Amino acid sequence: MTAAPRTPWTPPDTWARWRRGDGCAMCADSHLPENEHSFLAAELRRSYVRLPRNQYCRGWTIVALKRHANELFELAPAELAEFWQDVSDVARALQDIYQPAKLNYAIFGNRCPHLHCHLLVQTFADDPTAPIDFQAKTVLLPPTEYSAMIETLRARLQL
Amino acid sequence: MTAAPRTPWTPPDTWARWRRGDGCAMCADSHLPENEHSFLAAELRRSYVRLPRNQYCRGWTIVALKRHANELFELAPAELAEFWQDVSDVARALQDIYQPAKLNYAIFGNRCPHLHCHLLVQTFADDPTAPIDFQAKTVLLPPTEYSAMIETLRARLQL
Repeated sequence: MTAAPRTPWTPPDTWARWRRGDGCAMCADSHLPENEHSFLAAELRRSYVRLPRNQYCRGWTIVALKRHANELFELAPAELAEFWQDVSDVARALQDIYQPAKLNYAIFGNRCPHLHCHLLVQTFADDPTAPIDFQAKTVLLPPTEYSAMIETLRARLQL
Repeated sequence: MTAAPRTPWTPPDTWARWRRGDGCAMCADSHLPENEHSFLAAELRRSYVRLPRNQYCRGWTIVALKRHANELFELAPAELAEFWQDVSDVARALQDIYQPAKLNYAIFGNRCPHLHCHLLVQTFADDPTAPIDFQAKTVLLPPTEYSAMIETLRARLQL
C-alpha cells in the first residue's frame, strides 16, 4: 500500500483569522444561488441549505449556519436549538425522499471552520464501515437534475 | 491499490428490529460503567457521555442519547435542543482541555442506529482532508489514564 499524499492544516495565523470570520470562504458564498461547490436549495431560519455539485453520494446535502461561528458552544441555547431544528427538518425531508438505511450528520470544518453540517444518505448497498470521504470520487449531474433535486427537497420542506 | 474488504450492511429485517429498539446494543450498554468499547464518563440531561477505549484520536468522546431513537427528527423540539446542549457542553469541555484546531461532530450509526454523536479532536498536526476512520488503528491506554481523562472531563463539565 502506498501512503496517500498528506495535506497540511491551514497555517495557525490564517486559521485564527478564518475562525474570527475574517476571510471565511463560507461567509462569502453560502448564500449565493450557486458557487464553486454547490447550489442554494433553501433558506431556513438559521441556515442555508446547499446541494453539492459532487453527488458522489446521492442526496448529499449541506446545512450551513447563516452567521459565522466555528463550534457549537459559540451558539446561544436558542440559536443552537434552531440550527439543529433546521438540520432535523432537512433530515426528515431526505428520509422521505430517499428512504435510506441511515442518515449521517457530520460537522467537520477542517478546511473551513464555519459551522456547516453534512447530511449523507446511506443505503443498504453501502459499506457501513466505509469512512465518509468527499474526495473518494466526483460525480457531476446534468444541470436539470440538480434543479429537480432542489425542487423535490423544497416541496418536502414545504417551501 | 487493493480494494479494502467490504462489510455488508446489517440485513434489513434485523436492521428494522434494531431501529425499533428491539435488540439495540446501545440501549443495552450505554449506561454501564464500562462495556466492550468504552467507559461511562458522565450522565447529562439527555445523554450518556462515554470515553472509547480506543483513543487512536486522543480525546475521542461519544455523547449517546439515553433513550432509543435513530434519526434527529424522531426527537421532539425540546428534546432535540437538550441533546445538542449536552453535545455542546462536552465540546466546550474538550476545547478547554485539548485546545484543538477544530472539533468534529459526527452522528453515523451505520452499525447501530441508536443516536450517538462522536466528538473528535483535530490538531494542527492532522491532515484536514483525512476521513474519520475508527478502524484506522487501535490505541489502548493504561487504565489509570482513562480514569484521569474522565476526571478531567468531569471537572470541566463541573460535575
